[in-house]
Amino acid sequence: MGVEGYVVVHNIAKRHNVGTMARSASAFGVSELILVGRRDFNAFGSHGSTSHIRFRHFHSLQDARLFLKEKDCDICGVEITDGAVAVNQHPFKRSTAFLLGNEGTGLSAKECEICDFFVYIPQYGCGTASLNVTVAASIVLHHFGVWAGFSERSRDGNKFIVAEKPVKQGRRSYCSETADSIIEERKSRRESASNAFFDECGNGNSSSNLLDVLFGDVSRAG
Amino acid sequence: MGVEGYVVVHNIAKRHNVGTMARSASAFGVSELILVGRRDFNAFGSHGSTSHIRFRHFHSLQDARLFLKEKDCDICGVEITDGAVAVNQHPFKRSTAFLLGNEGTGLSAKECEICDFFVYIPQYGCGTASLNVTVAASIVLHHFGVWAGFSERSRDGNKFIVAEKPVKQGRRSYCSETADSIIEERKSRRESASNAFFDECGNGNSSSNLLDVLFGDVSRAG
Repeated sequence: MGVEGYVVVHNIAKRHNVGTMARSASAFGVSELILVGRRDFNAFGSHGSTSHIRFRHFHSLQDARLFLKEKDCDICGVEITDGAVAVNQHPFKRSTAFLLGNEGTGLSAKECEICDFFVYIPQYGCGTASLNVTVAASIVLHHFGVWAGFSERSRDGNKFIVAEKPVKQGRRSYCSETADSIIEERKSRRESASNAFFDECGNGNSSSNLLDVLFGDVSRAG
Repeated sequence: MGVEGYVVVHNIAKRHNVGTMARSASAFGVSELILVGRRDFNAFGSHGSTSHIRFRHFHSLQDARLFLKEKDCDICGVEITDGAVAVNQHPFKRSTAFLLGNEGTGLSAKECEICDFFVYIPQYGCGTASLNVTVAASIVLHHFGVWAGFSERSRDGNKFIVAEKPVKQGRRSYCSETADSIIEERKSRRESASNAFFDECGNGNSSSNLLDVLFGDVSRAG
């Protein structure tokens, strides 16, 4: 099995940040977006990409860590700590889950505890103490994709090709690629049935989808 | 004189994107944010960084190009075109201005015309045709900063140090660093007095500053 990327978001304060985060995560080939703690979010900014990325929910950081460790996944905190490595140096070794802090305060001591290592994004100017959380996540995920050598998505003119909106498949929607990957997906779904699996798309008129409809035009322009 | 980075935004559709763009531009050591066409924007998302970055305004793309070419600056379109180079390959040679398209449609033919070359950001997933415009800009500016070897801003704990809010200096506010740079700045201000110089901070209660006050808390959390 190839290298995989995950995003772990713990108690994100601005719910709409999850939408843009999902868009970037989807662009950079992230396998799952894992929400810890708060599970409510809205899909504003996602441009429909929430239908193409898998969401998972855990109540505690420790539960999330356990799940990731079973997948032999490193947990990388995105934070300026002593010993944090500049992300453009690609200090990656295997599948990696990126833990993003709450927007205001960065990663807490408890969050840092579950991390195996840290990356940060060098800044050069004098005008801001930190980056927007989605911007930071996107830069890190971009570098991970480059490091992992994920294959580039095909393009049509000046846009990357978006997959068909996935057909509702039981409790989940996800990128359907090949029959093999669907079988693989079903298997992993059975295996993870005991996890708290986040049913983001199971309900066709969930609030997040509603927001996608309400803000469709604005969202598309973003 | 060292290498410099510029951001050129032409008729951005979502005015609040300029705020987050200014925050990233400031983080990555961009010298000026150049607005072409529409000059109204709001500073939501900038976290106060609009006080630390210089804004300039031109009515036409050709005027902007003229200004940049006098500075021996390449103009790099951020767009997926035939011949666009992946940004992580750092196809830079000198000072560079990055032209971002309107969020909906990417760069127009007219915009492409003033570009010397193009970069794009590789995508790997199937869920979105493109990235949020500020996310795309941030990734490109990050790479340019790495390529240029800008020196890293000092940190205090897990935040980069923000400069003192600049004292109002006539029509402009900017990052004040050393007496030398202030003299240099005044000189260049005199020289550029004939340009349409965008008076973003001259008026203490402009709408952008007002928004900063109104949304101060939200903005800080972001």
